[in-house]
Amino acid sequence: MMEIKDLVHKIYEEQGEIHDIFLAACGGSLVDLYPGYYFINAESETMHSHWLTARELTVSPSKFLKKGALVILCSHGGNTKEVVEAARFAKEKGAAIITLTHNPGSVCAGEDMTPVVYNWDDDTNEKDRPQGIVLQILNELMHIQEPEYRKYEAILDGLDQADGIVRAAVEKVKNRTWLFAEKYSQEPFLYIMGSGASYSQAYGFSICSLQEMQWMDCCYLHSGEYFHGSFECTDENHLYILLMGTGKARAMDERALTFLKKYAKKYEVIDAFALGIDAIDESVSEYFCPMLFYAMTVAYRTALQDKRRHPLDMRRYMGVVEY
Amino acid sequence: MMEIKDLVHKIYEEQGEIHDIFLAACGGSLVDLYPGYYFINAESETMHSHWLTARELTVSPSKFLKKGALVILCSHGGNTKEVVEAARFAKEKGAAIITLTHNPGSVCAGEDMTPVVYNWDDDTNEKDRPQGIVLQILNELMHIQEPEYRKYEAILDGLDQADGIVRAAVEKVKNRTWLFAEKYSQEPFLYIMGSGASYSQAYGFSICSLQEMQWMDCCYLHSGEYFHGSFECTDENHLYILLMGTGKARAMDERALTFLKKYAKKYEVIDAFALGIDAIDESVSEYFCPMLFYAMTVAYRTALQDKRRHPLDMRRYMGVVEY
Repeated sequence: MMEIKDLVHKIYEEQGEIHDIFLAACGGSLVDLYPGYYFINAESETMHSHWLTARELTVSPSKFLKKGALVILCSHGGNTKEVVEAARFAKEKGAAIITLTHNPGSVCAGEDMTPVVYNWDDDTNEKDRPQGIVLQILNELMHIQEPEYRKYEAILDGLDQADGIVRAAVEKVKNRTWLFAEKYSQEPFLYIMGSGASYSQAYGFSICSLQEMQWMDCCYLHSGEYFHGSFECTDENHLYILLMGTGKARAMDERALTFLKKYAKKYEVIDAFALGIDAIDESVSEYFCPMLFYAMTVAYRTALQDKRRHPLDMRRYMGVVEY
Repeated sequence: MMEIKDLVHKIYEEQGEIHDIFLAACGGSLVDLYPGYYFINAESETMHSHWLTARELTVSPSKFLKKGALVILCSHGGNTKEVVEAARFAKEKGAAIITLTHNPGSVCAGEDMTPVVYNWDDDTNEKDRPQGIVLQILNELMHIQEPEYRKYEAILDGLDQADGIVRAAVEKVKNRTWLFAEKYSQEPFLYIMGSGASYSQAYGFSICSLQEMQWMDCCYLHSGEYFHGSFECTDENHLYILLMGTGKARAMDERALTFLKKYAKKYEVIDAFALGIDAIDESVSEYFCPMLFYAMTVAYRTALQDKRRHPLDMRRYMGVVEY
């Protein structure tokens, strides 16, 4: 497997200037692609980015899906039908593809998929997991393609620091996650909020960690959108988890916190600042918050699993029945 | 106020070719902008489209927000702070703006906002409500800018037909909505699914009609994403509403229906085909499904209001307290 840097250079040489980045996957893998989408959207002056569930790439393909587009896909198990189809479809259209997978024996790891096979062990460094790999790819591409791009070194430094920050944070919150599970394990329902690049983790916390792995009902909300409808449900009986990121989007999370302090009683704040993200340069730290929040969702769901005696790996449909 | 057609021509003359369409608003108004986003994404070969909560336009502005961009904003009341700020910010960056509002006395109706003031009465034609206005604008723009665009007449015909279809559908479902409320008014929680352009209505049904207007807990899901996590919650006790649209995205809704039939017991299917959308040309009918589904959310929430004796206009925070 090529180094990320070499892979990006090779694609650039073959495709010429890249105009569009498509990030397509399903469920948890789709979540991992969002920070890259948000990064390109905020930083690039030559590339548009698109983030969508893999099936939508094939059912309503953008006309920019052609030569000059790079499609980054991800399938942990490597055989997700929608992802395989999207990858093949994108290639047919003339786009370059990179397919991330954990499974070296899968379809997505095939030579024709331009695969990046990642490790997924407890000691795998954050920069070598999907979120980190996507940031590596896009940072290299920005560096090659945009002479005015000034955050290359800051992103590289962030990639180096992220793993240490995340590991320290996991240790730090352990007791808090037990207390959370002790208090709220029987809660019938909860809302999870985030904004900016970290909105993805409100989504992932909900659909993967709680709905899929704990069969717990919940809903993800964008902290900015909260005030335009959803907040009418807020009262002392409703439970909220608020992910507070960095960057200018944080203002939306802060506004939500002020409101929760006044009108709610049950809320858990997971603040990236309090968990050490400020070791990363403030011009780019917001792109690393989602990695940190992902580790927090793992910590919280593990505490819930133990208290609720609901194994994280128990499934009634996924991999069990045909659908 | 200018005719939509003249307005689009004027903007095109002033800005030259449009490369980017930004659709920015909050809550229910943001929902109304999604079909336009989806339309441009699927149909245009010269324009990229962006759909985002208004605050994100100012906190992480795309570098394509400049001359050559058209920003369409919407604020029903016309004074939504985030929308007003986004409109001013976009103008400063050199983009053209069009601001939709129902309130002729509001900030958004000011001359500098390039306003389209719409009616919002029971007899207001669907094509003159925000979703219709956005489709009118973008259809004209496509017609001017892309010689290969072939759906101009089909969209115009759809705009003419939509109101009749929606009114007939509202009559048709009245009894069904009463039965739904009779059975499910005390349900503690529900999931609402949709895909394609109609995903917006799963979101709107949830955050506006239920969370805001009924203080009912619920979660919106993308029918395609459902199979990658959320479906593990499905059982005979969970309630689902499934919006089934048209176009190729419908395959995702159909897959969800097949699954619900097998593993769920409580689900309500709102099928655009069964409600007459097929009177519109099949090459464009998917863009009109969200209008129809919006009218359905109004019908269902009205039945819930009456059964639950929870007035749709009752608010505990919005317009009541400072936040």
